[in-house]
Amino acid sequence: MSIAEAGEFGLIARIVARLETGTASLLGPGDDAAVVAAPDRRVVASTDILVDGRHFRRDWSSASDVGHRAAAANLADIAAMGAAPTALLVALCMPADLDPAWAEELAGGLSAEAGLVGAGVVGGDMSSSPTLTVAVTALGDLDGRQPVVRSGARPGDVLALAGRTGHAAAGYTILSRGFRTPKLLVEAHRRPEVPYAAGPAAARAGATSMIDISDGLLQDLGHIAAASAVGIDVDRGAFEIPAQMRDAASALGVDPYAWLLAGGDDHALAATFPAGTALPPGWRTIGRVHEGAGVTVDGRAWQGDKGWDHFR
Amino acid sequence: MSIAEAGEFGLIARIVARLETGTASLLGPGDDAAVVAAPDRRVVASTDILVDGRHFRRDWSSASDVGHRAAAANLADIAAMGAAPTALLVALCMPADLDPAWAEELAGGLSAEAGLVGAGVVGGDMSSSPTLTVAVTALGDLDGRQPVVRSGARPGDVLALAGRTGHAAAGYTILSRGFRTPKLLVEAHRRPEVPYAAGPAAARAGATSMIDISDGLLQDLGHIAAASAVGIDVDRGAFEIPAQMRDAASALGVDPYAWLLAGGDDHALAATFPAGTALPPGWRTIGRVHEGAGVTVDGRAWQGDKGWDHFR
Repeated sequence: MSIAEAGEFGLIARIVARLETGTASLLGPGDDAAVVAAPDRRVVASTDILVDGRHFRRDWSSASDVGHRAAAANLADIAAMGAAPTALLVALCMPADLDPAWAEELAGGLSAEAGLVGAGVVGGDMSSSPTLTVAVTALGDLDGRQPVVRSGARPGDVLALAGRTGHAAAGYTILSRGFRTPKLLVEAHRRPEVPYAAGPAAARAGATSMIDISDGLLQDLGHIAAASAVGIDVDRGAFEIPAQMRDAASALGVDPYAWLLAGGDDHALAATFPAGTALPPGWRTIGRVHEGAGVTVDGRAWQGDKGWDHFR
Repeated sequence: MSIAEAGEFGLIARIVARLETGTASLLGPGDDAAVVAAPDRRVVASTDILVDGRHFRRDWSSASDVGHRAAAANLADIAAMGAAPTALLVALCMPADLDPAWAEELAGGLSAEAGLVGAGVVGGDMSSSPTLTVAVTALGDLDGRQPVVRSGARPGDVLALAGRTGHAAAGYTILSRGFRTPKLLVEAHRRPEVPYAAGPAAARAGATSMIDISDGLLQDLGHIAAASAVGIDVDRGAFEIPAQMRDAASALGVDPYAWLLAGGDDHALAATFPAGTALPPGWRTIGRVHEGAGVTVDGRAWQGDKGWDHFR
């Protein structure tokens, strides 16, 4: 059966049946709009797009994988402000000949990833389109904290990382060369493992700036450096290369540091903290902030790609 | 110049320069997420998609028109809950060869329409895609009121309408037959005139149910009838046919009531009120709610199309 045969309202009912709306949902799908609790009197909101053939491939990722990734990319943005995600809204553009089961499995993946942080899918919209596209908006709550923005890094701060980098990029390279293993890396491309709790924990510990690493560590740190008018130096020695990544890099003729320092889509969080801060669990020091501009690695300009441009 | 040549970050800067972020924006574009005031401790949220070639045509509508329409479709959903819109987030998928000026003008249209209700564009995402797509998420504030949902209509209630129906559908038919006039109808397709203030006003006046008429009056009233487990009868005599619509219908061989009762995209608001309610300004009675099921016109089943299915 195709979506055209199932009909719009039939498909909506099948999708909504797959969703958990979460504890913050006061009114879920089915009306003109959803209503979500915002106890802090401020709501944090972010939107991220995944396009078929560009951000994912249906022969590499299941519908559920795509749902997990689409949710993770947005939930990570909320966490990177130091907020706790509360809800997702999903804009889903689908070819009319798509199997409705694909859309249902996508919804299941979105809902399951949101459920990791107690959030739910509260609404959205569907349309037919030649290009399968998933645009998700995430909402979150600051629980009385100030948002941790990109502009607060100060010379002397330590640079810290929560979560992993390079894994999703390695998985993408592996898949694009026609391989299916190692599982660790391929799965990281399909479903990022995002350290959601590390975001609010960093905010509570006094992080001066924070960002979700979606386009590559060096490129995303460049946004902090520019917004804060500081220089940032990354200590390459702080990155251990997992054995499976070292083997894959060697077999494929890739510099593993290009994955670790410039690979996107793992949705690690990078933050700066005043020197001497006891880092919360899950955070490790990977560099420092200094007077100046730009991002360096071991004091030198990085020679490889810095990361992803969505129109390149 | 194409978007690919302008580069992602250059284009973001050009677009952000066109945006007003509105009074509720506490942190606008440029960070991982926006922060929007939610004084009510609840946030109303809705998402709507416009796809090139399906919801708009670039030879019929300017980029600014598309921006106005994309914003209006979402702001109307917020108003239909009885809430005041506060902010928009925009997911924009664009072919890499699109002229960046188109995206800038779109942003200007989105921002201008949001400005009509004091809301602003606070964030979003961009991606390249073969299919030009605008997915907007709107947020709003209830100011202490209960949301007006679809399920509250009761037998004996009066059915009322704010805003116009049939105009956008007539404009669409006119354009699709190769004509460009009458302006009133063609412009209604390009830029709906939404009675935003009528939503919160209806809530304050005690509306028992409300809906944004996006897919056609009869189809959308069907959602209220089903959710409320009531029947709704529409009084056809309550609809005046504007002279320009009558002339266009006659010239094109169309029943003007098909436009008025089943045409979408004007984003009028329909609501039910307890009998005897003094309707707020802008609202007029167009029918009544009774025990039963379904939607009738002058007591009989409507023979024409009821409205729009996005996968038909």
